[in-house]
Parts: sequence; C-alpha cells; structure tokens
Amino acid sequence: MMTILVLPQSLAYAMLVGLPPQAGLYASILPAIAYALVGSSMTQVVGPVAITSIMTFAMLSPLVPPNSPQYLALSAMLALMSGVVVLAAGVLRLGFLSNLLSRPVVSGFISGSAVLILMSQTKLLLGVPSNHVTLMLGAVAILALYLARTFLTPLLMRWTVPQAAAEMASRLAPLVVVVCGTLTVVAFDLDTTYGVAVVGQVQNGLPQLALQWPTLADLNMLMFPALTLAFIGIVQNITMAQALAMKRHERVDANKEMVGLGLSNMVASLFGGMPVGGGLSRSAVNVASGGQTPLSSVMSAFVMLGIVLLGTSWFARIPLPILAASIVVAAMYMIDVAEFRRAWAYDRADAFAFLGTALGVLVLGLQLGIVVGIGLSLATLLYRASSPHIAVVGRIVGTEHFRNVERHGVETLPGVLFIRIDESIFFGNLRAIESRLLAELAKLPDTHTLVLIMSAVNRVDLTGLEAMTEAQQDLRGRGIALHLAEIKGPVQDRMLSTPLWKALDGRVHLSANAAFEVLKSAP
Amino acid sequence: MMTILVLPQSLAYAMLVGLPPQAGLYASILPAIAYALVGSSMTQVVGPVAITSIMTFAMLSPLVPPNSPQYLALSAMLALMSGVVVLAAGVLRLGFLSNLLSRPVVSGFISGSAVLILMSQTKLLLGVPSNHVTLMLGAVAILALYLARTFLTPLLMRWTVPQAAAEMASRLAPLVVVVCGTLTVVAFDLDTTYGVAVVGQVQNGLPQLALQWPTLADLNMLMFPALTLAFIGIVQNITMAQALAMKRHERVDANKEMVGLGLSNMVASLFGGMPVGGGLSRSAVNVASGGQTPLSSVMSAFVMLGIVLLGTSWFARIPLPILAASIVVAAMYMIDVAEFRRAWAYDRADAFAFLGTALGVLVLGLQLGIVVGIGLSLATLLYRASSPHIAVVGRIVGTEHFRNVERHGVETLPGVLFIRIDESIFFGNLRAIESRLLAELAKLPDTHTLVLIMSAVNRVDLTGLEAMTEAQQDLRGRGIALHLAEIKGPVQDRMLSTPLWKALDGRVHLSANAAFEVLKSAP
Repeated sequence: MMTILVLPQSLAYAMLVGLPPQAGLYASILPAIAYALVGSSMTQVVGPVAITSIMTFAMLSPLVPPNSPQYLALSAMLALMSGVVVLAAGVLRLGFLSNLLSRPVVSGFISGSAVLILMSQTKLLLGVPSNHVTLMLGAVAILALYLARTFLTPLLMRWTVPQAAAEMASRLAPLVVVVCGTLTVVAFDLDTTYGVAVVGQVQNGLPQLALQWPTLADLNMLMFPALTLAFIGIVQNITMAQALAMKRHERVDANKEMVGLGLSNMVASLFGGMPVGGGLSRSAVNVASGGQTPLSSVMSAFVMLGIVLLGTSWFARIPLPILAASIVVAAMYMIDVAEFRRAWAYDRADAFAFLGTALGVLVLGLQLGIVVGIGLSLATLLYRASSPHIAVVGRIVGTEHFRNVERHGVETLPGVLFIRIDESIFFGNLRAIESRLLAELAKLPDTHTLVLIMSAVNRVDLTGLEAMTEAQQDLRGRGIALHLAEIKGPVQDRMLSTPLWKALDGRVHLSANAAFEVLKSAP
Repeated sequence: MMTILVLPQSLAYAMLVGLPPQAGLYASILPAIAYALVGSSMTQVVGPVAITSIMTFAMLSPLVPPNSPQYLALSAMLALMSGVVVLAAGVLRLGFLSNLLSRPVVSGFISGSAVLILMSQTKLLLGVPSNHVTLMLGAVAILALYLARTFLTPLLMRWTVPQAAAEMASRLAPLVVVVCGTLTVVAFDLDTTYGVAVVGQVQNGLPQLALQWPTLADLNMLMFPALTLAFIGIVQNITMAQALAMKRHERVDANKEMVGLGLSNMVASLFGGMPVGGGLSRSAVNVASGGQTPLSSVMSAFVMLGIVLLGTSWFARIPLPILAASIVVAAMYMIDVAEFRRAWAYDRADAFAFLGTALGVLVLGLQLGIVVGIGLSLATLLYRASSPHIAVVGRIVGTEHFRNVERHGVETLPGVLFIRIDESIFFGNLRAIESRLLAELAKLPDTHTLVLIMSAVNRVDLTGLEAMTEAQQDLRGRGIALHLAEIKGPVQDRMLSTPLWKALDGRVHLSANAAFEVLKSAP
C-alpha cells in the first residue's frame, strides 16, 4: 500500500530511459501484477529499476532520439524481446546461467553503471542553458536525500523511535523532497519565471495497448541488446530475490523467477514499453510495510492504477532537477566501495575482477562491459585452478592424520614421498603440478616411492588422466613406484577401466594412513 | 642429416599455403637454425607444418589470389606479425597461455583442420580439368603411402628387421613414392602428353631477402589472423616439444619455446615468407636418425641449403597429385579418432568438447573454431565445478577415517550431520551446494550440529565466503551450530580475519575425527 513512496522513483527512471513520465507509472502496474502471479519470490516487487533503465538508454539512444515516438516503439520491442528471451531461458531451465558471474563482478558492473548514470544526469542538474536556480534546487535535494538516507534512521533510533518506524521515515524522504520541491516551484513560479524544467503534462487515464510487431531489421538491430538486457535482468533479479528470500528462510526457484521476469517484461512492452526488473527499494518498502505475500504487490499496483486514472495532473510541475537528484543519490549508493574493500582484503583476484568489470563498463560500454565481466569471472576461476596448492605431507605423530610438513610436526618414511595435490587435475594445471612434483623429487633424489594423496582431487579430466599415465611411465623409468591414496569415489569410478589403473606399479590405498602402514612394514 | 626425407613434405606444404615450392625449402633452412639456437627442445625441428599452412591459406586466400606476389607479401607479413606476437608472449612469460586448451579440444581442432586440408586437396587430386591419369597417380600414391605408414613397420619387424630400421623404412616411403612418381612422369611424359600438373621451374640459388614493411592497413587486416596463428602456433609447438621431451626425461621451458618459435617465424618472414612451426614428422626423423642436440637440426638445414643451391632443377617434374597425396595421407592421420573414443569412454564432457571444436572449425572456420575451443574448454571446467560432489560421511568403525555413508559401513552421531564438499566453494556452485545442504537438513530435521568437512575445498572465493557467512546466520536461526573441520592451510589463512570466523557458533577442528570425538563426548 506504500506504493506512493516509490512513485517519484518510477517517474525518475522513465526519465532516465528517455521515455515520457507516465511510462514509469504504467511499468509499476501490470508488470508487477504479472510477476506477482507467476514469480517465485514472496516479497519482491517488479517495476522500473536503475540498471535496466540506464542499459535501455545506453543501447537505444544512439539509434533514435530519446522521447520520440520511434524511441518508445524501440523500447517496447526491446522489453518484448528480452522478455521472450528471459521467459524462454526459464522454460528451458537455464537458471544456472545466473551462476556465470561472481559477486565482485556483479558489483563492479553495477558500480560502473552507476557512474554512467551519474554522468547522464549532469545535464538535468545544471539545467539547459546552465541555470543557477536549477542547480541550487538539485544540490539542495541531493544533500537532503543523502542526509536522510545516511543519518535519519540512526538519528531517530537514538531518539528512541522504533527501528521499523525510523527506517520507514528514511524511506519517506524522497517523497517529502519531491513534494517540497514541487511546492517551491509552484510558490515561486520557478518553472515559468526562472526556466526550471518540470515534468509537464502527464497523460491521464489507462495505459494504451501500443505495441508494433518488430520487423526483421528491428530484430537484427535489437538482438544483441535484448540478449544483454535479458542476461543482466536475470542475474540482477535472481540475486535480489535470493537476498530477500534468505531473510525469510525461503528459497528461490531460479527458473520460476525467470518465467516471472520474462512475462512481466512482455506485459511491460504492451503498456508503456519500459523494461522492468526486481526493484531493491520497492521490494524493501514492500517488506517494511508488512508485505508477506505477492498480494501486497498486487494491491500496490491497484493503488498506482488509481493514481494514474485520477491524479496525474498533480505531477505536471514536479521539477526535473529534483527527480535527477533522486536518481543521483540512488546511483551514489549503487557504487559498492565496501564490496571492493572486502575483495581487496580477502582476495586480490576478486578485487581486480571488480575493478576490471567497472572499468570495462566505463570504457567499453555496458554490453562489452558484461562480456569483460564474464571473461574475468572465468579467468579468475582458471587462474586459481591453474596454480594449485601442493603440499608435502607427513603423519602427525600418534594420529592417523596427515598434514603439511612445513606447518605441523610430522613423521615421514625414508625414501617415501607423500604429496597431496589440492586441486582437481585438469588441462589447466598439469604443467604446474608436473613441475612441482619434479622439483620435490629433485630435492630427495633417493625417493623410491611416491604416494599421491588424492583427497582433494575432485576430478581428473581426460587431459589429466593422459598426463598421469605418461607420468607413471616416466616415474617407472626413474625406478620410482607410484602409489595412490584416498581417491574419491567418483574419480575412482572413472579410472577403474583406464590403462593407468591397470599399469600402476604401486598400490591404491583407502587412506594415506593405510599407505603409511603398508610402506612402513615393507622391506 | 636425413633432411631429404622431409623434402617432399616441405614442397607439399608450400603448395598447401599457396606459395611457390621453394618457399617450403627456404622455410626449412634459416628458421630451423634460428630455433636451434634459442629454442628449449633438444630434438624438435622447426619448418613448414600442416596446421599453420592450412591456417595461412584459410586466412589469406579470401584476401588476395594465392601464388600472386601480393599473396607472398601478405604471407611474409603474417609470419612476421605472428612471430612478433609469439616472441613478445615468450618475453612477457605468458607461457601459461598454452594451458587454455584441453587436450580433447586441441585434438578436435587438429581433426577439424585435417578435414579442411582434405577438402582443399580434392582439386589437385582430380586434376583441372578432371583428368584420369592425374586421379590414378594420386590414388596409387595415397594407397602406397597409407599402406607403408600403417603396415610397413610391423611387417618388417616380423621379418626380424630391428625396430629403428623398420621405422626409418616406413619414413622413407614418402620420398620413394615421390621419386617413383616423378620417374613415371618423366618416363611416359605424363606432364606434356596427359596434362598431369607438375611443380615446374623451382627458383635456384639463395633465398632473397624480400620483406615489405606492413602498412597500417595491413596491420589492421592481419591483426586477428596473426593473433590466431600465434596462439595455435604456441599451443601446437609446446604440446609437441613436451611430447618429445618426455621421451627423453627432459623438461620444456614454455617461455623459451615461445622465444624460439617467434624468432624462427620472424626469420621465415624474411626469406620465402612461409609461417613455420614445430614439425611432428621432421622431429621424428631427427630423433630416429640419432639427433641428440640442436646441432643435428643445424646440419640438416645446411644440407637443405646445399640442395637449394644445386639441385632444384630436379624438382621441376615432380607431379602435383603425388604431393597432394602426401598431404592427404598426413591429414588422414591428423584425424584423432582414438582421442575421441577415449574421451567418449572416460568423460562425455570432454568428448563433446572435441566434437564441438571440430564442428566449429568446419562450420565457422579456423579462427572462430579456436574461439569455440577456448569457450568449450572453459565451459567444461565451469560445468564440472558447478555441480560438485557432496557426500554425507561417517567414521569407518575402528579407524579415524571418514567415508561416504552410501559407499562404506560407517558410524554416525545422532543429531550431528557430517558433510564433505568435494569442490572449491566459488561463485559458480553456491546454489548447488546450498540446495544440497538444505535437502540433507530436511531429511534429518532433528539435526542440531552441522560439521562441514573442508578437506577437498581448495579455495573459497569472496562470493563463497559471503554465502557461507549468510548460511551461518541462517543456520543459527534454525538452531543449528556450524562446525568446520580439516580446513586447508591456505583457505584458513584467508578466513582468519573475516566476520565468518569470528561469528562461528561451532568450533574449527583439525580433523573430522577430532570433531567426532568432541561432539561424541558433548552433552
């Protein structure tokens, strides 16, 4: 029922896309109902969101001028096409696609997009031609929104206001700022006297069914944008739905999510034509105001419908710099410096992936930026697996447990080398493993037995198997018997019928300890 | 000294590229010497090879007509550019790049290329216009070469010929076939009377320094082809060098290899202009004839130089269908059905990667084919890591060893769930792990303690860490204490300063057995 809180946001995002303001209102009605009917999340609310809005603007504004009828038509087609792609991905159960990106990469992408959003709003904040009143209005609004968002809740709580109420007050701030800003414009006639841009006449009444069928040329032109938008929409929506579900101990069905998101975009393309997604603030407002089931989202949609039918004339004098200010503040909070700091502290590779994706978005644009992000996600995966941790281990005295000889006081057997490989053996790390094994054997030239402890080898691919087979022959040539220990069930199942298994000079032991006992008592 | 054996091959590959025959001879002289001086392999011989030849033809023939002076100039520039790229990669120590492709993908790429080579030779085998004598000559040559390669060595060995001599006889076959074919042409005047195409006048004397500097337009046009050629050259060369080194218990320095390969291609671009690589047959001939050091490769190059200076007039009447036949037989052996069979038996994902790469080469061409190959290598990696093996484990009675409750008879503790995750925890498999954990907890609703055995968790990336932190809070909400056991040293080092470590309800145990003992005696 608190839909009215996100009303300024809906107008602002429509402006960000380059569509008439009512498009943002329409996109909060039927698409939200469509999602509520089929989506899997109980509390997520679908509507205009920053990330799909800036993507739509970035992809369509080079093709046709924003705010033109052709632009509206293209935007609707884009929503339709990406909706069909998302729906199809959901029906084909491609939910695993959302696993392609690591969290630092998603954060880097959103942070880079936020910078693009900030840059896109400068013109509106300065006014055209540059205008002091506009600038002042925008600056005051940004300051007010920033202070309210950052300090209002803790301040109210210190004054013993309950947390829920304090948070709600903070969320009310954007609406208050818009109302105050509009009243200021009306009181001093800032729009007619000082040239402050305002929303202008908002079309009243029901959304019109207004879809053109895409031509083959449109399909061709919009194919790659639609795929990108669909992919980002999926990742963003599922990430958000999972965050919401976790708080309620619920689970998200990624495929059902995609069906919901796809359908709501297809509906969005029919009315107003603005691509939609799972909205962070509107979902948060929904939860804060007690929404427990999709019903509350449907109710909100009806409230919005009422506003569209009755009250749009009130919007005409909302000043654009105030809406721009609300976009700017939202974008500022999208720049996820905290995630970057965590990544830097925990794992540099993740930090570089964040930075690379953000820079990719800024330098190469949103579409190539996401390709860079996928590439960096996979590159970090490959890079890490390519330089495996390999430990020479020994038995902790008095136990059956084997640990790194460098970290723990352990016992060893003369001429027997126990080596634990802490990575799946696959095409990317064979050379690293080989060179480490040879280095360890060179350190202990009287080695006659090599025991490979495979407790952390979760897979051996064909390239790895062939390399192990060759290594076994090489070791035999050096007079070293190769034993294997603690092979995992699934790995062993595959190996049983291979030449390596049959040709093994040494034995296969259930545990490193069993190998130790056998080799200790061997002559 | 047995260089003469690969002489027909050098002529044939020059023809495959679309260059005059002497280009193949020149490419066997100075580039081979350049590689011998700086490369890391003791026995590898550099010269014209099938895979770079078909790639050069595929990349340049759409641009200018083969055998034209512009074609020669482009080919030389391509060799220069790819040589510079390979050299730079070596100097920058990017040897790990050769780890990007799994063996099935490399085999699939080579097999697909071989099919392209077979198709490219059809015209020469049939004759233009279609010619029965040409066809007959080619067919007999193919049959003879095939039989010699497949059956000659075992046959001679059954007749008590020593293996080395028998193998050398089999390698002599191509030369014998070319000599016989040429004698047949000379004896019956097949070229002048029946229109059988022959090599024609081969330029005598020293190779001429003949390089044009590439213009900016050339650079632009050849950039992507040069990168592709460089990448494949690196992978092919290092794979080959390693196979040779393994037989001699030597090691290959990938970066030094790249410097050698890069330099030899730069030298190749100066004289004759044919890209070169590490040749399988010429290296095998070198090893078989007793080559132990790069000196034998240098000697061979001087023999080839003598031939170029004195004897090229003998080549004029070598029939092209015979050379085409030698290419065809070489290509037939490049189709690696055995690797595909092994992959199919051992791991379907590898088999599909082989097939996908081969089809990619055939349908999309060599350049996109290799992109498909890299994609499939990474996709198999991600796919495997995304569906980790997770086992509920218990203690094997009377030991300290924990195994899968479904595979072994084990003891467990009431209300305590021991779960072993057999994969690094990273962005790609969080949902799979989460859903498995929830499923196991749902099976045992009276669980109060969850012990995660991390012996096979080789890494936890930031996304994984954040998910574990959230899971820990979720478990606390359900009244379940989370314990961790057997965390690997490098994983623990990273975790020590994170919120997860500090907030843990349960304890961190050195081993699963230690956790078992503690929890057994707990109230």
